[in-house]
Amino acid sequence: MPTHEDMVAAVKAYVDAFAQENLNAIVNLYADDATVEDPVGSPLHSGAEAIRAFYAKAVEMRAKLTLNGPVRTAGNTAAFAFTVDVPNEGAVLQIDVIDTFRFDERGRVSRMRAYWGPHNVRQGGST
Amino acid sequence: MPTHEDMVAAVKAYVDAFAQENLNAIVNLYADDATVEDPVGSPLHSGAEAIRAFYAKAVEMRAKLTLNGPVRTAGNTAAFAFTVDVPNEGAVLQIDVIDTFRFDERGRVSRMRAYWGPHNVRQGGST
Repeated sequence: MPTHEDMVAAVKAYVDAFAQENLNAIVNLYADDATVEDPVGSPLHSGAEAIRAFYAKAVEMRAKLTLNGPVRTAGNTAAFAFTVDVPNEGAVLQIDVIDTFRFDERGRVSRMRAYWGPHNVRQGGST
Repeated sequence: MPTHEDMVAAVKAYVDAFAQENLNAIVNLYADDATVEDPVGSPLHSGAEAIRAFYAKAVEMRAKLTLNGPVRTAGNTAAFAFTVDVPNEGAVLQIDVIDTFRFDERGRVSRMRAYWGPHNVRQGGST
């Protein structure tokens, strides 16, 4: 099973992949049969193809992630708070999110859930 | 169903109840048939009696909670990052945690999950 350090490294790789607009690096963190629920309560993106399509949009929107505080890990799951900056017509939308990543035995993410809603979206500064 | 504001108020009431060492105020946030999984992966505390016994220990240890950033809400679930301070022989243990609260239709917490592990515990300053 992945260690705390493995899980923290995966979270940091996820943040870095957005910074680099590297879609492959994001998708490669996931198991082939993974599910993504973003936001929690919405339909699942299941499997590599659906997950790639979901993240392709986020990369295209130039979403950038900033971690808020340390990654928490419990067993094979990591939870982490972050802010997403999305450029929006000369300004920036900021979205406060908490994600959970459940990992499989090989250290790939098997289940992602993103906790955020309309009240967590705000207008940030100008770019 | 509870609104964003209802869920944020419940989280703040939870933090305040620890500050006031008010066990009843903590337990009253929960539905009678709620479950508490703290940390994630450990056996569930199921139902009012087990939940009361679990929190009685935390209150006895004088655990105090400080929120780290805004409460995230998705549908009927809130997620929030916080630090717990626990007095420990003249010093303070600090534990970084992320909790999720799922709410029932009446706005009571029906399921709580706490994400933290040994790597999220550190020695803080002296009291």
